[in-house]
Amino acid sequence: MDDPARVERLLDAAVGGLTGPGCPPRLASALRHAVLGGGNRLRPRLCLAVAEALRPTRLAAAEAAAVAIELLHCASLVHDDLPCFDDAPTRRGLPSVHRAFGEPLAVLVGDALIVAAFDTLTVACVDDCDCAAALVALLARAAGTREGITAGQAWENEADVDLERYHQAKTAALFEAAATMGARAAGDVPERWRELGRRIGLAYQLADDLRDAVGDAQTLGKPVGRDAALGRPNAVRELGLSGALACLDERIAEVAHSVPDCPGRGELVATLERLLSRFRP
Amino acid sequence: MDDPARVERLLDAAVGGLTGPGCPPRLASALRHAVLGGGNRLRPRLCLAVAEALRPTRLAAAEAAAVAIELLHCASLVHDDLPCFDDAPTRRGLPSVHRAFGEPLAVLVGDALIVAAFDTLTVACVDDCDCAAALVALLARAAGTREGITAGQAWENEADVDLERYHQAKTAALFEAAATMGARAAGDVPERWRELGRRIGLAYQLADDLRDAVGDAQTLGKPVGRDAALGRPNAVRELGLSGALACLDERIAEVAHSVPDCPGRGELVATLERLLSRFRP
Repeated sequence: MDDPARVERLLDAAVGGLTGPGCPPRLASALRHAVLGGGNRLRPRLCLAVAEALRPTRLAAAEAAAVAIELLHCASLVHDDLPCFDDAPTRRGLPSVHRAFGEPLAVLVGDALIVAAFDTLTVACVDDCDCAAALVALLARAAGTREGITAGQAWENEADVDLERYHQAKTAALFEAAATMGARAAGDVPERWRELGRRIGLAYQLADDLRDAVGDAQTLGKPVGRDAALGRPNAVRELGLSGALACLDERIAEVAHSVPDCPGRGELVATLERLLSRFRP
Repeated sequence: MDDPARVERLLDAAVGGLTGPGCPPRLASALRHAVLGGGNRLRPRLCLAVAEALRPTRLAAAEAAAVAIELLHCASLVHDDLPCFDDAPTRRGLPSVHRAFGEPLAVLVGDALIVAAFDTLTVACVDDCDCAAALVALLARAAGTREGITAGQAWENEADVDLERYHQAKTAALFEAAATMGARAAGDVPERWRELGRRIGLAYQLADDLRDAVGDAQTLGKPVGRDAALGRPNAVRELGLSGALACLDERIAEVAHSVPDCPGRGELVATLERLLSRFRP
């Protein structure tokens, strides 16, 4: 059952481990700020929902996968907010990490969260190391230089950009990881679930474009109008507002059709519909 | 047998994987610049020397460990050179990554290399996933927020710093990882080898302090006098030049005594003496 409070408890425990004895005090504060400062936790909730729909006997691997994905996502937000990228003053309604703790700690927080994401997977899957290795490979692909978020961010520094490839790498890759890692953690073949993750990711990208174009900074807890200001592609500029909204509805409707057969399919579809309903601005 | 060319071949193959189809072209160039632009490869050579001294039947895991450690080290150099840290214009005789490719790509290169370090371990150890998981844990500890390089860098942002803890985390942790991961990859108990790594790391830190205080930027391929300029602790300032040199000789002499019993101990001691002889400025 989709339970946001469970995700918070898992993240709280993970950050507790990172900030334990030996951790420099300001780094510890910055890590807590980066991870525990709100967020809708879509990716870990998707990961857990997929795993639970497969009715595994134990959830430890899926919980580790969910935590790893959210830590990696937080790392990408902290680095993406840096002055040399988006120069965002706020995130999740709070000062961005570099505004609150300075750039050096923001760089280190991102680095530390990437390390922690991978460490989490092997610590939790100690009695099923095949599973741990598979999860590491899935997460590395989603974070990587060829089709992962590093590639996605790097496309912003290229003269020629294929928009679909950019969105796929920057946004969809981590949703794919959420679906495939949840499936693998529950013992299923991960590639059966990639298309579902991809579709949710592309719907999310469109929703993000809409929020950036017509959203309100106060409600969103982060700046708006950044795509236009930074000259980046945005679906609203390309399709117009009503075109982008229609496209979003279409993408959301497609998601339910791409849920693979599994014991808890009905419940999973209902959970996804609830999560996706929030995508509309 | 210590063979620097082998380390270069392994790193070349690793970077080839990262920069394959799908990788944005400028990111690919920046990754090559960061990893293949020289360097003495001390840590991977230590890792391989320890593994070989244990006479394993196969070296694939040790080679993966060596690559992972050097990728993580390169990541830390690229981020450490950023304007918000050392603001170093050169590294290994070339422009630093942010000078050559801009800050956004320098941040991304560091991120990508951390991801790649962990990925490398599970890819190479696919037929021994217990070993892969153990190596991931050792690398995560060396990179981490409590006693790893992230902690080490973060101590530079604290008002109260314990100098020994700072050097241990910033420098010795990755040499410890080189020794313990080499041992684990060859099937030995890693903790037997931690003290050796620690001693080499502390000798290296002293050598680095000496180079910064009395070295020549042209020869070193990076700026000197940074500790004084940035107000950071430096052993030469504390002990004087002759005191620091004497301390370095003492530390180097201690290293041989901390090599554990193993089948190739004699060869390993000879290799270490050769590597450590370069520490004297």
